[in-house]
Amino acid sequence: MTELAEYLATCSQRVESFFDRNLPSKDQAPTTLHGAIRYSAMNGGKRIRPALVYATAETLGIELSEIDCIAGSIELMHSYSLIHDDLPAMDDDDLRRGKPTCHRAYDEATAILAGDAMQALAFSVLTDHSIPGPEPALRSQLTNQLAHAVGSLGMAGGQAMDLAAVDKDISIQALEYIHRQKTGCLIRACIDMTQTCCTTLNQQQRSSLLQFSEHLGIAFQIRDDILDVISDTDTLGKPQGSDSDQNKPTYVSILGLEESERRCDTFYKQALDCLDEFKPSSKWLRMLAEHIVCRQH
Amino acid sequence: MTELAEYLATCSQRVESFFDRNLPSKDQAPTTLHGAIRYSAMNGGKRIRPALVYATAETLGIELSEIDCIAGSIELMHSYSLIHDDLPAMDDDDLRRGKPTCHRAYDEATAILAGDAMQALAFSVLTDHSIPGPEPALRSQLTNQLAHAVGSLGMAGGQAMDLAAVDKDISIQALEYIHRQKTGCLIRACIDMTQTCCTTLNQQQRSSLLQFSEHLGIAFQIRDDILDVISDTDTLGKPQGSDSDQNKPTYVSILGLEESERRCDTFYKQALDCLDEFKPSSKWLRMLAEHIVCRQH
Repeated sequence: MTELAEYLATCSQRVESFFDRNLPSKDQAPTTLHGAIRYSAMNGGKRIRPALVYATAETLGIELSEIDCIAGSIELMHSYSLIHDDLPAMDDDDLRRGKPTCHRAYDEATAILAGDAMQALAFSVLTDHSIPGPEPALRSQLTNQLAHAVGSLGMAGGQAMDLAAVDKDISIQALEYIHRQKTGCLIRACIDMTQTCCTTLNQQQRSSLLQFSEHLGIAFQIRDDILDVISDTDTLGKPQGSDSDQNKPTYVSILGLEESERRCDTFYKQALDCLDEFKPSSKWLRMLAEHIVCRQH
Repeated sequence: MTELAEYLATCSQRVESFFDRNLPSKDQAPTTLHGAIRYSAMNGGKRIRPALVYATAETLGIELSEIDCIAGSIELMHSYSLIHDDLPAMDDDDLRRGKPTCHRAYDEATAILAGDAMQALAFSVLTDHSIPGPEPALRSQLTNQLAHAVGSLGMAGGQAMDLAAVDKDISIQALEYIHRQKTGCLIRACIDMTQTCCTTLNQQQRSSLLQFSEHLGIAFQIRDDILDVISDTDTLGKPQGSDSDQNKPTYVSILGLEESERRCDTFYKQALDCLDEFKPSSKWLRMLAEHIVCRQH
């Protein structure tokens, strides 16, 4: 196992243990709904977002136990968004991480409600005083950051624009705007919410970290689009080529493979530059960024 | 106009003005999504929940401007839940308050995303420091109360159990449990979140108000079940008899009309008893409770 693979495994274990402690048990009524929530939250996801939260905390010298609730709430948001994105009325996907999507394993109504309940749960674990974390006033600010990241000017809005773009010719600027909302806002929240917990940062440092997250978010999405073309269904855990099958504009469909790879690399390097003032504590954040632009699934 | 009708109109205006100030404009991208959000939030609802928030504030001597964000966030949650409940995979309703439901006026994907974004917006207006309201530490507590009220052990869980009960014979205890979650938790949140903003209440007073909200929540749901039988589609603004058409157990289907009316009245009287120690400031709360058990739609 490489050093980074070990780090990612540790982050996964950390957020999964958080879920195990804080998600309702499968035996608790309504059992089907709770089963669907655990099925979707504990399905072997890559946990890139929690890893970004933990790596940002290491960069800033924040105790990891302080920000487990941030990692957990963001990953719950991500998991809920996947459930809803996969619904027949949306992307209509049958497979997610190699397993039946929530509405296939259960049914559509359960999948809608599981997603709804997981969004509520994300805010609930973020503000539960019995769960270790920042002081209440900061938690209110974190709630606001998370709510903006997933709302109509963030993740949900991005998904709406993504669906509206099907079968359309759009510019690369329009595509970038869509992805900044759909994927970028939640990636940014990983870094932004964590740095909210560090009260000693100056304005310049905050702005550098924010820029890092912006560049990384775009690189992440370009890489996703590239993988949809060059990878295979088994490696992806979801149908390869689903974007082009659905006639969705992607970086690759607009710019071609080579130019997309070049841009991904450019955003990656710009992201790294923003971490210059956080050496050497940003080691994991750098390695994560590299992993994100080189990953195979 | 009766005194109460005037009070309800004032409460409606207050929450609608809050929405107008704080919901994204229809002209802001993604315009379809924002159109669907405003369509669903500003569709002439009865605004019973905001009225409960304002009446509780009057009971406790809290400035109304302090709790507009509570009234707004709860009503956003209620509106979002109606959008999702109406979806084809759930109750499959075409009409809501006499107008096409969101997925009929727009489409299913937009309706799912509008609901998702409205849940996020509810948490966002509750914790936005630029919106007047309680201090940040209290807002964190309010977020937690609201998140619990709408999560898998609250509203979303109740809806899951309600769907699971279709075509089943269930006991009146089981039905009450479902409705306590599906409707009761958000009604209770109106009173509970507002009293969180009053730091001078003693334990006995808190407990009385909470009991009031529990009894009222059940009376509210029994009245809903009664109206589904005795009212007509025009008055209800949604198809009369939709519960029995869907073979959903209701108070009336289990207990009959007469016994349901008797129970509704009992819960109403128990609710009023809990307000004894808040005379005379609880005038509006009493009148609202009476309105809830006597309303025609």
